[in-house]
Amino acid sequence: MPELRKDPITNRWVIIATERAKRPMDFAKSGEEMKSAFCPFDYGNEYTTPPEIMAFRPPDTEPNSPGWWIRVVPNKFPALDPSSRIERYGHGMYDAMMGFGYHEIVIETPDHNATIATMEDRQVEEVVWAYKARYNALAKIPDLKYILIFKNHKRDAGASLAHAHSQIIATPIIPKRVQEEMSGAQMYFQYKERCVFCDIIYQERMESTRIVEESDRFIAINPYASRFPFETWVLPKNHSHDFGKINEKEVQEFSQLMRRSLLRIHKALENPPYNFMLHTSPTTGEGNRFYHWHLEIVPRLTKVAGFEWGSGFYINPTPPEDAAKFLRGVEL
Amino acid sequence: MPELRKDPITNRWVIIATERAKRPMDFAKSGEEMKSAFCPFDYGNEYTTPPEIMAFRPPDTEPNSPGWWIRVVPNKFPALDPSSRIERYGHGMYDAMMGFGYHEIVIETPDHNATIATMEDRQVEEVVWAYKARYNALAKIPDLKYILIFKNHKRDAGASLAHAHSQIIATPIIPKRVQEEMSGAQMYFQYKERCVFCDIIYQERMESTRIVEESDRFIAINPYASRFPFETWVLPKNHSHDFGKINEKEVQEFSQLMRRSLLRIHKALENPPYNFMLHTSPTTGEGNRFYHWHLEIVPRLTKVAGFEWGSGFYINPTPPEDAAKFLRGVEL
Repeated sequence: MPELRKDPITNRWVIIATERAKRPMDFAKSGEEMKSAFCPFDYGNEYTTPPEIMAFRPPDTEPNSPGWWIRVVPNKFPALDPSSRIERYGHGMYDAMMGFGYHEIVIETPDHNATIATMEDRQVEEVVWAYKARYNALAKIPDLKYILIFKNHKRDAGASLAHAHSQIIATPIIPKRVQEEMSGAQMYFQYKERCVFCDIIYQERMESTRIVEESDRFIAINPYASRFPFETWVLPKNHSHDFGKINEKEVQEFSQLMRRSLLRIHKALENPPYNFMLHTSPTTGEGNRFYHWHLEIVPRLTKVAGFEWGSGFYINPTPPEDAAKFLRGVEL
Repeated sequence: MPELRKDPITNRWVIIATERAKRPMDFAKSGEEMKSAFCPFDYGNEYTTPPEIMAFRPPDTEPNSPGWWIRVVPNKFPALDPSSRIERYGHGMYDAMMGFGYHEIVIETPDHNATIATMEDRQVEEVVWAYKARYNALAKIPDLKYILIFKNHKRDAGASLAHAHSQIIATPIIPKRVQEEMSGAQMYFQYKERCVFCDIIYQERMESTRIVEESDRFIAINPYASRFPFETWVLPKNHSHDFGKINEKEVQEFSQLMRRSLLRIHKALENPPYNFMLHTSPTTGEGNRFYHWHLEIVPRLTKVAGFEWGSGFYINPTPPEDAAKFLRGVEL
């Protein structure tokens, strides 16, 4: 059973995934390339994943059979366990919790070689509809406080399978980094009585040097204090704290701007490894006035090293103004 | 000139290293192995580094010539610039600062193939004496608030040169992660009137399952809420917030326990990439009663992925009790 443990100094929670316990010899092979011989996400291999939670598929097809265009399944090696109880306990001076939570996989396409950057817009929209459906379903489960949708593209970004997929982890606590964004945004709101993200969008539109692309309802920027080269955020231009409320028009425009941003990165940087993370407010309903959902795309071009680990302070060798200019210049 | 920029949401500072500005094509080669043809840290190549700040060398040798056994030089591509002024300024809604600070390299040995894990204890002590000397010299410079000593071992941990070296970065602000540790430790102190690190040492000695090794004055543990597999901390058993005050006996024991911990990791995990970071209190003198200096060693065995970036929440597949047992069992 996985266990959540709290660091008594920083109050940072960690998932100790006892189910997948690794011994020294298990790490030796970690440098190897991903094998492509067998893929559990291809048509015909549906029986190798846990049974599907949801799929977009023609009505005349059976669950867990081919024909689907989007498929959501539980992670076979989940970091958290939905069958666990919610229980907090002490261990001497330390604090722990049972590893309750959900861990799902969104298989984004049946095409083994597709990626969001190179898919049809229509397919990316379906991915976002799947995010929304799972987000809203998980948000109804009592005791869950946060739902993180994210993606690891390629091995250097932490992917263990090459077939395009994203992940959803739902946790019984609000993660530290989200909490930091929430408190920072709240402090700003208390001082200015405005949403800090709305102000960022206003400032970026005024300056325009860090804008990658803009549509009616969304904007893609390289943030002023980017931690990583070519870090790109996609934000709704109208204030909204809750991704779960995204409407049809917004799904269309968000999908398009996400795909186009990823395609720029794909072309400018030769299909680099990347992560993306969708930040929205906790399901506890906070943040209505001061928080603003957004997608953070982080190409993995530099290695995070001792200075960053030790200080939480990042060294970015590419000014975001230069990065945005390169990305704008990519021919799509 | 490098620039410090503050993220307006989380108040996290970032160094935008404009001096080393990287364009997309500069990242293409980043997967390549380190070339070993020419090494600026070998005997005879002293002229290729900036002039030495300090060296341990026989009295009859010239600065910047062979004969040294420890050499400290400015980083040729510094993240921060000592000649910059201290100046804060606004940029629209954003906050920035000139990139003032120091960035030095400690060349740990003239032997191109040595590593701390496999050096003589005597040489590791000299490395620690060099840390202490530079720490105390930098601590006297007005406007510097924090001095971080750290090491990147191998390319996957961010090293760009194979020859054993550590780095020192001195910053005009207290980094976010250090600030988190400071405030967490202070909150604990307010509640318990005891140092949280001293309590951790007491608890670990009582339980003993997470102890890797212990000597009279130091202890090496795998912390209860380890973020990473085989994460190892080395702490002084007597309360001390200031690494700069380490005495001769302590230098000896600390060096030995650091080397032996790194050797265990080296043997158990086949010389993996790792980072280490020395955490001590800010040079502003805070933390006297509640903070406790320590070394954090982080083997880089798993990839940090979207979930960790998005949440600040780590998934550790190796319980620290198992990791400590493996490390204890290594024959030295």
